[in-house]
Amino acid sequence: MTLQIYWASGSAFSWRVLLALELKGVPYESKLIQLSQREQRSPAYLAMNPRGRVPVLRDGDHVVYESVACLAYLERRHPAPPLFGGDAQETGRIWRLVCESLAYLDDPVEEVILPLYFGRHEEKRDQIARAAPRVHDELQRLEAALAQHPWLAGTPGPSAAECVIYPFVRSLERAEGKPAAAGFDLPFSPLRQKLPAVAAWMARVEALPGYERTFPPHWRG
Amino acid sequence: MTLQIYWASGSAFSWRVLLALELKGVPYESKLIQLSQREQRSPAYLAMNPRGRVPVLRDGDHVVYESVACLAYLERRHPAPPLFGGDAQETGRIWRLVCESLAYLDDPVEEVILPLYFGRHEEKRDQIARAAPRVHDELQRLEAALAQHPWLAGTPGPSAAECVIYPFVRSLERAEGKPAAAGFDLPFSPLRQKLPAVAAWMARVEALPGYERTFPPHWRG
Repeated sequence: MTLQIYWASGSAFSWRVLLALELKGVPYESKLIQLSQREQRSPAYLAMNPRGRVPVLRDGDHVVYESVACLAYLERRHPAPPLFGGDAQETGRIWRLVCESLAYLDDPVEEVILPLYFGRHEEKRDQIARAAPRVHDELQRLEAALAQHPWLAGTPGPSAAECVIYPFVRSLERAEGKPAAAGFDLPFSPLRQKLPAVAAWMARVEALPGYERTFPPHWRG
Repeated sequence: MTLQIYWASGSAFSWRVLLALELKGVPYESKLIQLSQREQRSPAYLAMNPRGRVPVLRDGDHVVYESVACLAYLERRHPAPPLFGGDAQETGRIWRLVCESLAYLDDPVEEVILPLYFGRHEEKRDQIARAAPRVHDELQRLEAALAQHPWLAGTPGPSAAECVIYPFVRSLERAEGKPAAAGFDLPFSPLRQKLPAVAAWMARVEALPGYERTFPPHWRG
């Protein structure tokens, strides 16, 4: 039975799992959810994920949710090519980067981008001002790592660190392009000029086979 | 070379890794850090972990930080007994629980316990009041899971889900025992009465071989 992924266009959490599926070359059936229609709150969806969030991975009778848990599940189910490293040292570095994203990057990125995406930037000025320096600090760490080696964890090819972190950085770039962003002094913007090693890394991710299939459809055009 | 763990007494993040080391039966050298002496900000410590946080795992020349990354590293380095499941379904359930703790439980628990630990409960009243219902909601989910099976992920024995979640629940119990907690209406308190399946699970964890060696030394007596 083909693996199914329930996801939403523009959800960085969903994007993580789509990238992993493409990198592993696992066939999957795409189930695009319309958050605006509250499809993630339907009884059938809540029966899969009681938190009503995307993504959800369905593999026959088995269901996994929480984006990083989906990646760990895929690694176990389809070990090659590995996304969590070829030895313990790589595994440690990759998971350290993944955990750092969950702990220090994801939340402040969302605090910056969601108000800019949804036109709530005026009421959320303080939130954006508090989160932007935290985002900047994390991006500086990524810049320093990527100045040393082409992939975040120093692996020979892309790893789960790319799957986890790229969608949040790319979402930030989308948000900085919104007209409302001009009213904020975002220290990392414009991202691809201020962070050259990150920019080169983004281009490498964007050149990966299958990348285009993961790009949020409603961002095009 | 013996594995070294740098940790702090009472740090739930550190406790996670100590539990995993004991469950795996991996010999380790304990390096107890005094946070009050700011030992985690020394140049030697920052050279290991530039974020200056505990725990840090040192394995010869290799260093891992971020508690959950330490667990994933240990699993790869010392696969038996497995803490991340014996098959893909168990792996998915364990990682889902681990990720849920990182996303929904850890922060609100800290928002409740840190003010109570450090006598800042008056100035942090609003923070505690906002966080407590979120903690309660997560504990209800754990209670429901543990009413079904003895270990969180439905595995035959303890898994990484226990290592990750137990220290936060036990820290909550310590905080509810502080005199200052009496001034708050904590919906989950007293924890071992309101949540009988969680209480039975805590007793199971506390009966595991090696548990006593992981107990925060400054909590005794």
